[in-house]
Amino acid sequence: MESNQKHNWKTKLHEIIYEADTPSGKLFDVLLLFFILISIVLVMLESVSSIDNKYHDFLYFCEWIVTILFSIEFILRIITVKKPFKYLFSFFGVIDFLSTIPMYLTFFFGGAQALVTLRALRLLRVFRILKLARYLGASNQLKDSIIASRVKILVFLFAVMVSSVVFGTIMYLVEGEANGFTNIPKSVYWCIVTLTTVGFGDIAPQTPLGQFITTIIMILGYGIIAVPTGIVSAEYAKSSSKSNESNNNNESYSTEQKLHLNSQCCINCLNTTHQDGAEYCHNCGHKMHHD
Amino acid sequence: MESNQKHNWKTKLHEIIYEADTPSGKLFDVLLLFFILISIVLVMLESVSSIDNKYHDFLYFCEWIVTILFSIEFILRIITVKKPFKYLFSFFGVIDFLSTIPMYLTFFFGGAQALVTLRALRLLRVFRILKLARYLGASNQLKDSIIASRVKILVFLFAVMVSSVVFGTIMYLVEGEANGFTNIPKSVYWCIVTLTTVGFGDIAPQTPLGQFITTIIMILGYGIIAVPTGIVSAEYAKSSSKSNESNNNNESYSTEQKLHLNSQCCINCLNTTHQDGAEYCHNCGHKMHHD
Amino acid sequence: MESNQKHNWKTKLHEIIYEADTPSGKLFDVLLLFFILISIVLVMLESVSSIDNKYHDFLYFCEWIVTILFSIEFILRIITVKKPFKYLFSFFGVIDFLSTIPMYLTFFFGGAQALVTLRALRLLRVFRILKLARYLGASNQLKDSIIASRVKILVFLFAVMVSSVVFGTIMYLVEGEANGFTNIPKSVYWCIVTLTTVGFGDIAPQTPLGQFITTIIMILGYGIIAVPTGIVSAEYAKSSSKSNESNNNNESYSTEQKLHLNSQCCINCLNTTHQDGAEYCHNCGHKMHHD
Amino acid sequence: MESNQKHNWKTKLHEIIYEADTPSGKLFDVLLLFFILISIVLVMLESVSSIDNKYHDFLYFCEWIVTILFSIEFILRIITVKKPFKYLFSFFGVIDFLSTIPMYLTFFFGGAQALVTLRALRLLRVFRILKLARYLGASNQLKDSIIASRVKILVFLFAVMVSSVVFGTIMYLVEGEANGFTNIPKSVYWCIVTLTTVGFGDIAPQTPLGQFITTIIMILGYGIIAVPTGIVSAEYAKSSSKSNESNNNNESYSTEQKLHLNSQCCINCLNTTHQDGAEYCHNCGHKMHHD
Repeated sequence: MESNQKHNWKTKLHEIIYEADTPSGKLFDVLLLFFILISIVLVMLESVSSIDNKYHDFLYFCEWIVTILFSIEFILRIITVKKPFKYLFSFFGVIDFLSTIPMYLTFFFGGAQALVTLRALRLLRVFRILKLARYLGASNQLKDSIIASRVKILVFLFAVMVSSVVFGTIMYLVEGEANGFTNIPKSVYWCIVTLTTVGFGDIAPQTPLGQFITTIIMILGYGIIAVPTGIVSAEYAKSSSKSNESNNNNESYSTEQKLHLNSQCCINCLNTTHQDGAEYCHNCGHKMHHD
Repeated sequence: MESNQKHNWKTKLHEIIYEADTPSGKLFDVLLLFFILISIVLVMLESVSSIDNKYHDFLYFCEWIVTILFSIEFILRIITVKKPFKYLFSFFGVIDFLSTIPMYLTFFFGGAQALVTLRALRLLRVFRILKLARYLGASNQLKDSIIASRVKILVFLFAVMVSSVVFGTIMYLVEGEANGFTNIPKSVYWCIVTLTTVGFGDIAPQTPLGQFITTIIMILGYGIIAVPTGIVSAEYAKSSSKSNESNNNNESYSTEQKLHLNSQCCINCLNTTHQDGAEYCHNCGHKMHHD
Repeated sequence: MESNQKHNWKTKLHEIIYEADTPSGKLFDVLLLFFILISIVLVMLESVSSIDNKYHDFLYFCEWIVTILFSIEFILRIITVKKPFKYLFSFFGVIDFLSTIPMYLTFFFGGAQALVTLRALRLLRVFRILKLARYLGASNQLKDSIIASRVKILVFLFAVMVSSVVFGTIMYLVEGEANGFTNIPKSVYWCIVTLTTVGFGDIAPQTPLGQFITTIIMILGYGIIAVPTGIVSAEYAKSSSKSNESNNNNESYSTEQKLHLNSQCCINCLNTTHQDGAEYCHNCGHKMHHD
Repeated sequence: MESNQKHNWKTKLHEIIYEADTPSGKLFDVLLLFFILISIVLVMLESVSSIDNKYHDFLYFCEWIVTILFSIEFILRIITVKKPFKYLFSFFGVIDFLSTIPMYLTFFFGGAQALVTLRALRLLRVFRILKLARYLGASNQLKDSIIASRVKILVFLFAVMVSSVVFGTIMYLVEGEANGFTNIPKSVYWCIVTLTTVGFGDIAPQTPLGQFITTIIMILGYGIIAVPTGIVSAEYAKSSSKSNESNNNNESYSTEQKLHLNSQCCINCLNTTHQDGAEYCHNCGHKMHHD
């Protein structure tokens, strides 16, 4: 009986930490988001020397509070999952670990300043809050249209790289080291800066011929920008019209939508795509827990 | 009878000020637009020291004329509305107040120079002229497609922010304070400048590794620009094809169009979406007034 | 009979100069294009002091040849048209006049150097060559989709102007004259530079608050860029799918296409949209002339 | 019999070098891609003086290895093709020659350093790897939509050029040589930099009037960017919906797809669009060879 109670306690915690269906689960997600943002702001403020000089002790204190809270969250995540190693070596497991460890390392080793930046990756965990129902539909459709146009985008990036190398080498020859094009890699870097219409202006062509070639590069870049936009546009329109169609034709679509709105997470395999009334995980067959 | 006459006078003024259906209502809107533009030009010219030194008295005089005219408009708006407090605490009520008060404040307190800029917000009132029929259809469709893709745009902005923080922190580590990346907030700012392809060039990567990472950021930004364009494109195409469909299928569409073309404004609740022949406000039940 | 012969001579010349159907008409258009380009190159080279110093006499000589040729063309255009004044006060009539007169003015007055640039407008005449059949279909569809989205584009430009003025004033307050934001017009200019993602970098925010506001402006600009693209995209897709539909459904479409391919130009009213076998101008009823 | 054996040997080599169907053919393509990338990296590193000073001998040695390998490839390509001259004067034949010859020239002539950059063109050969099935479908659809919108893109580029010349000349007059607009070609160059939203900032308007005109140019550029995007978007959507249609309507589509996935290359005319079971080249009638 005690074991069952303990099991219930673990199950409830799992529901709070991994899911966003219950009020306490939502509260946990909001609190986590809050502390993640606080942590990001702390990292940023520490880097501003004028602020760090004044409030160093306060920032350091806050940093430790956030670190301890993240440590507790990390431990709870490991405890409540049935297969801790699967979690630990998952994308978010690694990020959770990396966002907790730096402060302990700085405590023990002092100079591990560089690792502090690993906490920036902590922001990636923010995407977890996207499990909240209404965001999911949108990001899924986006992901689908990007995956659908994956190969085309690669071909496009490939074309950008090839033209950058070709034009970069030409500009290196035409402008030369005197005008800032000191070597081909730098020339290629400048070429990408120009093709993407960023145009820092730290390096700029000085010779008439160089400026003429730059004109060609810019108009090329201007034309090229149309290509990925057109691709994603078309793919997105396709996928959204497809979802519309199924919406109109059969009622099964609304059921599918509901599936996505469900944020149940299997305690055993961390799979998150469960039907509303599912008693067992459709992936590993483990018993699902509901309130 | 006198009360009725007074009521008629108020109703007529309400029609002139709040609506754009009658010739006098249109004239009022055009005059208002003219004085708003004059006011904006005055604010701008005052800020140019060479012009302000020469024509200070003239500009100051014009400023007072505009202010008095706006004051009269403000008072008339309050008088002709049945629920003045509802107007006062509405978006345009606040802006009308803020665009009138600064000159009086400068008169009484002298140094309230900063408040003068609040008059720039006056330009927002220009959108009122959009009530003119033909502009409304277009902006409504635009607003609809932006609202429809709201969640997706938020997810996209979220992605921009996350990658800016991650890359900003990396660039801060790679380039360091010597090359202008003095702290993480500034680094993140630079990262957004690069991702959005603005590229001021006040800060630019100097190390080969920094330039390599910049290349990745730029191509990422180039790819990312396709996403919101694709979304709005698709949503807009959807909504416009939808309106086309309803246009073709049933005649009720043209009726709906006519509704929008009507610029009647309820004297009681300021609601502006009334049917052409409406005798009572569909929102508060107040009697509508026609010429 | 002589009068008829003269009439024939005028008609033939009209066909050569104003139309591109006959071989001689095409040759005239190509020659005109060639001399326009030559003229543009001459204007450009004259402005390069190192080249002008060396070859001034040669450039001046060429300039006179081009001017005389354009003068002859201008006179022939006036002679062959039935209503010379209509031509003279048309868009191209004014441009033809402005592109001929500067050299004569420099000859008589010497210092009328500024007028030379009017010849740049001569390039606008290049669009005439677009009468050549295959270019017309494309540019017409483009023009249609731009006209269809005219009001929406105006609303969009209006939004850009309003946000530029608001943000420009805020930046003027935040950054101040010390950081290059010397007055509001300059601040607004900088704001448009940033919103359109051009980003010269001649003026750049220096204060942390200014950089934060800049971030908002840039992301706004990034989002705004999606709007006109989406509009034109959707309108273009609509118009092209419409033309496809009519192409599939009825054969009358191909007839319409042929109409556009015809470059006949009425000698009386200069109208250029004539059906292939048209005997009389559908606009003014004047007799058409065919070979 | 010996001749037949020799023929088989040549046929097999042809299959390995020109096709990507067999494991050895794929291996050849991957190895070629690897050496091309190595060669590009070598060219780049040589241009970095700090690296070249240190590792010059090693880089020179690697360069010779790559050159010899490319020479062998070039010779094998000539041998295995039935019509060597057709290959030699084809696009890739010229590139293969140009990417092999520079090192030999530097060996014999010493100072032919400039020709080394011709090796950059070697990167164009990378596109050959695109023959690998899954990339081809995507790039073909892209190519089709670009070809379909070719005329429209030309009209668009033409518009960009015309407005650049007009505005460039105006800016040259307004800003003058004192503010960096030293001549019209440079002014036109600056105008294209601005229109394409690159904005280097090496030249920037200083006078209020110049900045006002720049504002117009930028907003124009902002509006213009929508046009090519809209065109490619619409064309791409059209072509992809077309291919979808044929996919749904008849099964012959999947057959067509398979055709593209086939990377057979005729030994006689180098044509690469063969059906899977083709016994003879559909272009020249030559016997095809299969494993």
